[in-house]
This record gives sequence, structure tokens and C-alpha cells, in this order.
Amino acid sequence: MSMALNPQYDAIGKGFVQQYYTLFDDPAQRPNLANMYNVETSFMTFEGVQLQGAVKIMDKLNSLAFQKIGRLITSVDSQPMFDGGVLINVLGRLQCDDDPPHPYMQTFVLKPLGDSFFVQHDIFRLGIHDVA
Amino acid sequence: MSMALNPQYDAIGKGFVQQYYTLFDDPAQRPNLANMYNVETSFMTFEGVQLQGAVKIMDKLNSLAFQKIGRLITSVDSQPMFDGGVLINVLGRLQCDDDPPHPYMQTFVLKPLGDSFFVQHDIFRLGIHDVA
Repeated sequence: MSMALNPQYDAIGKGFVQQYYTLFDDPAQRPNLANMYNVETSFMTFEGVQLQGAVKIMDKLNSLAFQKIGRLITSVDSQPMFDGGVLINVLGRLQCDDDPPHPYMQTFVLKPLGDSFFVQHDIFRLGIHDVA
Repeated sequence: MSMALNPQYDAIGKGFVQQYYTLFDDPAQRPNLANMYNVETSFMTFEGVQLQGAVKIMDKLNSLAFQKIGRLITSVDSQPMFDGGVLINVLGRLQCDDDPPHPYMQTFVLKPLGDSFFVQHDIFRLGIHDVA
């Protein structure tokens, strides 16, 4: 078990977030997100529903019907993990097609795999709106 | 390296969140949170500021001046981790003293330690308010 903290955790977190959402926000590229998840060991919790493995995760992501996504990222907080991975917390706003914008949060745990990383854990939640 | 997923992850996550905030929300008990962090290896990111080790984390938590906290938890999403730990994502609302309520998010990574857990990673962010 490697106990090395990766000193590049902040750049890795920010770079991953940009790369992930570039694929996610383009319906033509979204299926390529499959390469970021492990076939067996990746977990995703999408609005409270837990999915395991790249196939089920991609079934969910490919079922999202919206075509046009407006995304505003307000914060990306990353921490190095003791197995060389990176914990990433994203807070932002999401506008799908003609819906009003919603705050959202997403957490990723990246695990090292060769010279790169895969998504071991992924939790997505739309946030609550404040009452005016 | 243990590769055992803890099947009790959901109960562990919910139980931890209740226990943590019971201590946090009572200024008299807040110093006891020190027992949940490791002296050297725990990371906290509080509103973008990263702290390492129980002493610096508790310096921060003990510096929070508010006395009265109203807290509403809207979701707790937990996932089992492959070292026996638990990833926990909390979304909620926080009202400090006479401030207006703010949405917030907090992510914890619990690591197994004997029969219990400690907080290896902790990321806290106050959320953004929607424009009415």
C-alpha cells in the first residue's frame, strides 16, 4: 500500500473537473465518461440512488435527457489521499435546457491507475433552493 | 491492505453525522471533536483553507464564535470504501446566532481505527444563495 501523498493534488483536482465536465456537458462526448469508471469497483450515488460499476453508471448518465447544459463552478476543493488518490469536492450551479439554474454538489474520489486516475467514488446531489 | 467493504456503511454514515453535529453544535462539547481527528494525518478544508492535524483543525473549530446553531440536514449520502472506510456527503442548512440560514455541504472520509473510525478527510463549504 503506497502511502505517498501526491503534491499535485490541487492541479489534478482542477484538471479532472474540467476534463470530466467537458465530456459530461456535450451529449456527443458523454458516453466517453465510461473510460473514467472501473467496470466493477466504481461507485456512484446519483440523487440518493447508489450504482456500482461503469455499465450501470453509464446507463444512468446516458439516460439524462437534457441536451443543453449551462454550468457555473463556484468552488473546487481537493485533498491528497494516503494511497496517492485525490478527494475532490465541487460546488456549482447547473442549468439544463430551459429549467431554472440549480445549485449542485459533486464529490469524486480519484484512485491512481498507472500514470492516470479513475473515479472510484462519485456522489452527485442537486442542492436546495433558498426561499426568497 | 484490507479490501473489505463495510456493509454497514449507511448506518455508520448516518450515525457518525448525528454524533459529530451533536458535539459541534454545542459549544461546551465542541472541543471533544478533537478525538475524531488524527494528530498528524487528518485533513480539513474549511471554506477553501486547508488544515492538517487535529491541533490546527481544532484551533479553527474552536475559533468559531457563534453560540447558537440551527441545523437542518437535507441529505446524507454514504459509500463504502475499499479500505473499510466510509465516504459521507452531507447537504444541509445552517443558521448561526441571528444570521440568515445558509445552505452548506460537508464531506467526510472515515478511516477504520480498531473498532471505530477517525476523520481522515473533512471538507466544509457554505453554499451559494439563489437570487430570488
